Amino acid sequence: MDKLYIIKIGGNVIDNPSKFTQFLQKFAALEGKKILVHGGGKIASQLADKLGLEVKMHKGRRITDQEMLDVVLMVYGGLINKNIVSQLQALSCNSIGLTGADMNVIRAVKRPVKDIDYGFVGDVTQVNQKALSDLLENGYTPVIAPLTHDGQGIMLNTNADTIASEVAVGMAAVYETHLLYCFEKKGVLRDVNDENSVISLLNEQSYNSYLAENVIFAGMIPKLDNAFAALKKGVTQVVIFEADNLPTIEKKEFVGTKITLAE
Amino acid sequence: MDKLYIIKIGGNVIDNPSKFTQFLQKFAALEGKKILVHGGGKIASQLADKLGLEVKMHKGRRITDQEMLDVVLMVYGGLINKNIVSQLQALSCNSIGLTGADMNVIRAVKRPVKDIDYGFVGDVTQVNQKALSDLLENGYTPVIAPLTHDGQGIMLNTNADTIASEVAVGMAAVYETHLLYCFEKKGVLRDVNDENSVISLLNEQSYNSYLAENVIFAGMIPKLDNAFAALKKGVTQVVIFEADNLPTIEKKEFVGTKITLAE
Repeated sequence: MDKLYIIKIGGNVIDNPSKFTQFLQKFAALEGKKILVHGGGKIASQLADKLGLEVKMHKGRRITDQEMLDVVLMVYGGLINKNIVSQLQALSCNSIGLTGADMNVIRAVKRPVKDIDYGFVGDVTQVNQKALSDLLENGYTPVIAPLTHDGQGIMLNTNADTIASEVAVGMAAVYETHLLYCFEKKGVLRDVNDENSVISLLNEQSYNSYLAENVIFAGMIPKLDNAFAALKKGVTQVVIFEADNLPTIEKKEFVGTKITLAE
Repeated sequence: MDKLYIIKIGGNVIDNPSKFTQFLQKFAALEGKKILVHGGGKIASQLADKLGLEVKMHKGRRITDQEMLDVVLMVYGGLINKNIVSQLQALSCNSIGLTGADMNVIRAVKRPVKDIDYGFVGDVTQVNQKALSDLLENGYTPVIAPLTHDGQGIMLNTNADTIASEVAVGMAAVYETHLLYCFEKKGVLRDVNDENSVISLLNEQSYNSYLAENVIFAGMIPKLDNAFAALKKGVTQVVIFEADNLPTIEKKEFVGTKITLAE
């Protein structure tokens, strides 16, 4: 099986133009098959502000009404996605920007309303492995925005971490998939204020211990839960690490947190 | 040679949601290989207004500074393109949204500054026939936004009529290309106030006569100049007609203006 890197780049890196350009250079230089999944950073909220829209959140998750859906379509699907693609083209990385609707790559359902109506938010139901494989085999690098569609003509806002793990799982049948979360910190930290307290290896047992000790920063927990779920569904490796360290991944000498099912 | 329809849909149709939905239904139902090129309608100017940006024009052409480039990336590349793609998917038309940067489909150069600096406006230099053919042969329908790139990492704003004719010319080597301009009028009119005064056939001789008589509405002239140029470069047929009449194109019984090089 060929190796496939699915690389999620975090919003804080996107918000820092010079760091982001450096990351794209490293991404373009990474050999082999790869998919980039990007979030939106602060730009969507900034645009919403300028347009006088109220940014509604519930437990850290954005509520997406029709006007906010238009904003994320514009910012994620247009501005950020196309700027990434044009920069990668300049770096001789023949990329193609996609949302879930393009080539029907990622299908989702609008999240059912229970206690709270999240609006136009999609829960992924299907990843079109065939379409993505065809692109990869023809030498293209997909750049995926955190947007899906319901197959009925509605676009949906979907968390970029989730897109990355769903794509990694969906591609695991045909590739040895490596799911890499690149962000602004060196890895999962034992002490959120100490950049050198990286936990280098997490298995389920040690993860549960850290959770019991309240050592894991709350914002990391959904990402880590996702990571273990992805491993159980066939993903070979999940690594959480600093965007700067991307080239070290090929040498297997990276600094970061490797997540594994092994004891 | 297989037939290929390159269909440009005008901004006034995009601005009318019910007409636009009807058009997309007819477009999805059109048999054979096809490419949709869309403009932006008034939405880009409306967003610029809301953001307090001044819309600068010179001789009917938009001047695209950095902030306006961001607006057209958002509106053309994100909002409009992705809404079209998701609606076409719901109509079982497996479409893929593209700007010129995606798959390096359309390369352009930033227009040189002479009397006036148009800013981030691109003049097309190259259409990637191979990439578009691969998509078409694999059953995908490209949906192209009026945006190109310079290969150096810069996105550029490019007139949608021009994109349509450049794509039609670029694809003429491998397909029998039919360039269709769909808009809100029945065709090129002898009398701009009389919808029934459609000129059904234009060749260069009759076009020059109409020009001499000042019969052709000024806004149509660049489109018609483009049409003749495209025919000279191998495009089989150019037709200008009302979006509603799209299905009649297959029956060759359409109401509209057919442009030809024949005497």
